Amino acid sequence: MPSSLSLMPVPAKVQTGSGQLLIDQTFTAASTGRSDARLDRGIARFLDELSRQTGMPLTVRPADASHATLTIQAQSPGRKVQELGEDESYTLEISASHATLTAPTALGALHGLQTFLQLVAPTSAGFAVPVVTIDDAPRFAWRGLHIDVSRHFFPMEVLKRNLDGMAALKMNVLHWHLSDDEGFRVESKRFPKLQELGSDGSYYTQAEIRDFVAYAHDRGIRVVPEFDMPGHSRSWLAAFPDLASAPGPYKAGRIANWDAVMDPTREGTYKFLDKFIDEMAGLFPDAYFHIGGDEVNPKPWDSNPKIQEFIRAHGMKDNRDLQAYFNQRLQKIVAKHRKIMMGWDEILHPDLPTNVVIESWRGQDSLADVSKRGYRGLLAYGYYLDLMWPAARHYAVEPMSGGAASLTPEEQQRILGGEACMWSEHITPETIDSRIWPRLAAIAERFWSPQNVTDPKSMYQRMDEISWRLGWLGLTHESYYVPMLRRMAGREDIAALRVLSDVVEPTKDYTRTEVFPQPPVKSTPLNRLADAARPESTVARSFSDLVDTYLQNGAQKSAAEAQLRIWLNKWQQNHANLQPLLDQSFLLAEDKPLSEDLSALAAAGLQALDALDKSLPLAAEWRAQQLAVVVRSNSPRANLLLMVAPPIQKLIDAAAPER
Amino acid sequence: MPSSLSLMPVPAKVQTGSGQLLIDQTFTAASTGRSDARLDRGIARFLDELSRQTGMPLTVRPADASHATLTIQAQSPGRKVQELGEDESYTLEISASHATLTAPTALGALHGLQTFLQLVAPTSAGFAVPVVTIDDAPRFAWRGLHIDVSRHFFPMEVLKRNLDGMAALKMNVLHWHLSDDEGFRVESKRFPKLQELGSDGSYYTQAEIRDFVAYAHDRGIRVVPEFDMPGHSRSWLAAFPDLASAPGPYKAGRIANWDAVMDPTREGTYKFLDKFIDEMAGLFPDAYFHIGGDEVNPKPWDSNPKIQEFIRAHGMKDNRDLQAYFNQRLQKIVAKHRKIMMGWDEILHPDLPTNVVIESWRGQDSLADVSKRGYRGLLAYGYYLDLMWPAARHYAVEPMSGGAASLTPEEQQRILGGEACMWSEHITPETIDSRIWPRLAAIAERFWSPQNVTDPKSMYQRMDEISWRLGWLGLTHESYYVPMLRRMAGREDIAALRVLSDVVEPTKDYTRTEVFPQPPVKSTPLNRLADAARPESTVARSFSDLVDTYLQNGAQKSAAEAQLRIWLNKWQQNHANLQPLLDQSFLLAEDKPLSEDLSALAAAGLQALDALDKSLPLAAEWRAQQLAVVVRSNSPRANLLLMVAPPIQKLIDAAAPER
Repeated sequence: MPSSLSLMPVPAKVQTGSGQLLIDQTFTAASTGRSDARLDRGIARFLDELSRQTGMPLTVRPADASHATLTIQAQSPGRKVQELGEDESYTLEISASHATLTAPTALGALHGLQTFLQLVAPTSAGFAVPVVTIDDAPRFAWRGLHIDVSRHFFPMEVLKRNLDGMAALKMNVLHWHLSDDEGFRVESKRFPKLQELGSDGSYYTQAEIRDFVAYAHDRGIRVVPEFDMPGHSRSWLAAFPDLASAPGPYKAGRIANWDAVMDPTREGTYKFLDKFIDEMAGLFPDAYFHIGGDEVNPKPWDSNPKIQEFIRAHGMKDNRDLQAYFNQRLQKIVAKHRKIMMGWDEILHPDLPTNVVIESWRGQDSLADVSKRGYRGLLAYGYYLDLMWPAARHYAVEPMSGGAASLTPEEQQRILGGEACMWSEHITPETIDSRIWPRLAAIAERFWSPQNVTDPKSMYQRMDEISWRLGWLGLTHESYYVPMLRRMAGREDIAALRVLSDVVEPTKDYTRTEVFPQPPVKSTPLNRLADAARPESTVARSFSDLVDTYLQNGAQKSAAEAQLRIWLNKWQQNHANLQPLLDQSFLLAEDKPLSEDLSALAAAGLQALDALDKSLPLAAEWRAQQLAVVVRSNSPRANLLLMVAPPIQKLIDAAAPER
Repeated sequence: MPSSLSLMPVPAKVQTGSGQLLIDQTFTAASTGRSDARLDRGIARFLDELSRQTGMPLTVRPADASHATLTIQAQSPGRKVQELGEDESYTLEISASHATLTAPTALGALHGLQTFLQLVAPTSAGFAVPVVTIDDAPRFAWRGLHIDVSRHFFPMEVLKRNLDGMAALKMNVLHWHLSDDEGFRVESKRFPKLQELGSDGSYYTQAEIRDFVAYAHDRGIRVVPEFDMPGHSRSWLAAFPDLASAPGPYKAGRIANWDAVMDPTREGTYKFLDKFIDEMAGLFPDAYFHIGGDEVNPKPWDSNPKIQEFIRAHGMKDNRDLQAYFNQRLQKIVAKHRKIMMGWDEILHPDLPTNVVIESWRGQDSLADVSKRGYRGLLAYGYYLDLMWPAARHYAVEPMSGGAASLTPEEQQRILGGEACMWSEHITPETIDSRIWPRLAAIAERFWSPQNVTDPKSMYQRMDEISWRLGWLGLTHESYYVPMLRRMAGREDIAALRVLSDVVEPTKDYTRTEVFPQPPVKSTPLNRLADAARPESTVARSFSDLVDTYLQNGAQKSAAEAQLRIWLNKWQQNHANLQPLLDQSFLLAEDKPLSEDLSALAAAGLQALDALDKSLPLAAEWRAQQLAVVVRSNSPRANLLLMVAPPIQKLIDAAAPER
């Protein structure tokens, strides 16, 4: 793909031409194929989005569909309930006078419309799309985003705008983690206690769920529900303690307790699940039904003599066998209600039929094992958005690598794709978009584009451009930032705070700690700098690139040094500017050491540059002092990392080489 | 009021104490007075807003209302249909342990809750409000915002968030300009052609209007509808050409034609209006009904012989008398349907009863005349937000000045207040908030606060703080800006564009011109820099203050000069950075001369500083050259003004004094 196009995900085939198709207020788009209400709604949405993107009212309707500027032809409308593996390909041909989008199904046409939107840009002659021919189809059939709505609840509007974002990136599965210890989020009419006692009142009604599933279907997205069992089920047990392996009582909500596990030895458990799954199978039309199955705490089974007796009586070796027994029983129930069961790695067991799908949080080797045993699988490992990794790190995770690299073609076919996971312990409706976007775009590209599309530099360039365009969909991953900083500052002027917050990132992996308020209440405020800070600092990324350019000693060296000095001077002076605010707001007090160290690091960076300019290496003692600051900055404080520490360390290393 | 409090509007009486009331997650608020559903909803909204402002979930409910942290007591719930002049006063007493809000009516209590929200700030100990006692009541009973939804249509959500903003500033009237030449925006069930032929399909259904009126009432805001007649009525005549003074045909929409005027000589006109007003009187519960009455184009009456004959036959002098005859007939119809008629200056006529209210766009002298003749009036002159004046200019407009300053106390009583007017020729849903906010806050203060509250410096300090807090209500006056710049640039990096856009303002008064697209279509895109630029440049305001500080030659001089040089250097270099983008986007090409002149002005400013530093006056020829740039910059180009030209002119004048 030519670098002038900012398409994401990169299409399978792009052939550029010369010239462009102007888009002015006479622009029209219409379907010339068989009538399809879903596609028509998609075209209406496309025109709305094009109008928003350009700021031009687009109200002209073509007298005749075939004379529209963009004609769209889908050979079939696609399945009423979207199926895994439906044809999603499309061809988009743009000439200087006209554009044609053709696709075997409406799904492909919807994807093609998103590609068209990404091509629109202002030129000297007006808004335009380039002359181009694009033949596109996804690499993987399952391109999902998993959202946990149990740990924190997200209103429908938040989820819907994220569906819009997914559609823009051609993702096609929303995996909805609807129950966990902390909350049960679906209205059950058969067992209303589930939502009444299993949640804090925040749950989705069945009418909302139907509306949401239709909204997703309109955008080419399947909705796969997950009800996690037998572990991660405290919220169920708050409503139905009889299902539990230990006496309880149980209480939903955010408390540090994952002892709640269903009792697989009692018939009542399966009777209940049969009725429950019957109801949910009617509510969620997708063919797949996720039963979780991860991280079953052994304690309640170990300490229940009746359960241990059951294990012995049935000739099982251990709790693992007991869970396999549970899963077999469960699979029969799920299949009875015409659904295909799926679950996390832990459910894999030879006694389960091979139509079960395994979602692997363990990695490509585990995934390869799944496939070799004849099961289908998808990869979640490496795509956990809550771990706050940089986009490039997710981008580099290849489902067909590691153990999966040596699979036979037939085994490879059983790798369906992957899912990004947004676990919600530390996110709220205010911050969720910023934790999903724009990094999800990199993962979406991994799932859609050819395997050889791997250049992180190109990815970042395109991701930066896609990111602001996603704002037109109402996503708040850019707009959330300044208001959160102002809340902490309690004032309009946040210039100095922003200098600091622009170069920190939330701590990675599972290192985040929470300060619970006293007295304890339902939900910890997530209103600190660690919540406002972006998962990936673009300032730190650019600064790091500048340091590399500078140290390469090439033609760009002096320009890079000038830029480095501007940044370093600003940071060096910043703590003095920021200190009064840090003293004034309880929300910022914890960030003082970071602010001090940013100025200290900047001073070290400037000293290093001076020394390098003069070719006078600095002393080991100086080096040791500065590296102490680097070490501190690389460890979490206030749940934050100072991301300019590593590049500044490179300057220190260069100016005071180890002897 | 102590300067540490950022209250807006300034309350009537503030008595500060020492200490503060902490607000943590145990905070509760409850009504201890008689049960009132509206107040209870107001308190629930208050808790939601407090939670959003602080980022703290607030879910604790007090066991007993009287033990809430904030107790609220309203002696009466207020009228079911809010009335002009209802008591809106309140008293808010905050101690270190508790807060009490008391008010004669729920209206006052709602205002008091807004005051409380403005007091909340982060401190070193936590979120807190200061210990304080506030006795507050409005100066004027009518504190309105007029929104024109005819020239551009605004969806309900846009209007609702503006009602939220009005409530935050204690405004109490939404004057809804529902019909004009360009569009008729209300569903009439009796005359559905009005919306069908009189609009482009964008209108409010009666269900939406009822919901909106209830939403406003919940926030202490009356909704006064305006149906403009007999002029400004092309949209009506598109549906009912028989009502017209000339044969037509008529067409609604944005075309340059204001020839459409109703025929006041035909009985059919009054029969129609009687039925129409009967329907609208039922839909809009407010006691007042605005009939417009402004700017009647004389042409259709002059050129219709039957109308001229009617004027002669009835012994009228001229068209003015004919309009007075129309208004008398109309007033009887309005009164028959139990409404009080109001209209713009032009309807003032001794034959109308004195309960008619006159809204003056002509000014305080006209308003004084209204009052002296026994009518009640309100001031719109000086508060037209579409004229793009700075907030301080609106703030300085005092209803009781000019001719109104010498009124007797009784006559003064008839000045009810005022209205800010948002005419919508050049605004869209994307930009309207930025044209209303934050400047409306200054006008709201003029209407609420004591007459002696006039310091623009204090106003600006507080307005800057209120402005970002209004963002919590969903108002987009800050968030609209960057996306619009990126749309024009077609890329993420808008640094250089922003440097320019931060120092320009849309042209003032009625000097804006439109570039209509070819071929002409329904609605001109409003997607240029003149649409994105803020009505008032805070950068230019600060720069101007710095120039004044510098030229005062006081202790701050050298600090001011250093700051001036930073700005001037940035601007001087900016055109080189921006030029490629200006060449690349058709939306920005027209801004090139402005960008060039910003750099030229900055160069002149730097030369002036250098000369002043050396006490070497610059030559008259240099002065003439630079002033030519200033003169250009003070005239609209691309519908923009370069706002740093006047302060830079001061530097030029100082460095090269006229001889």
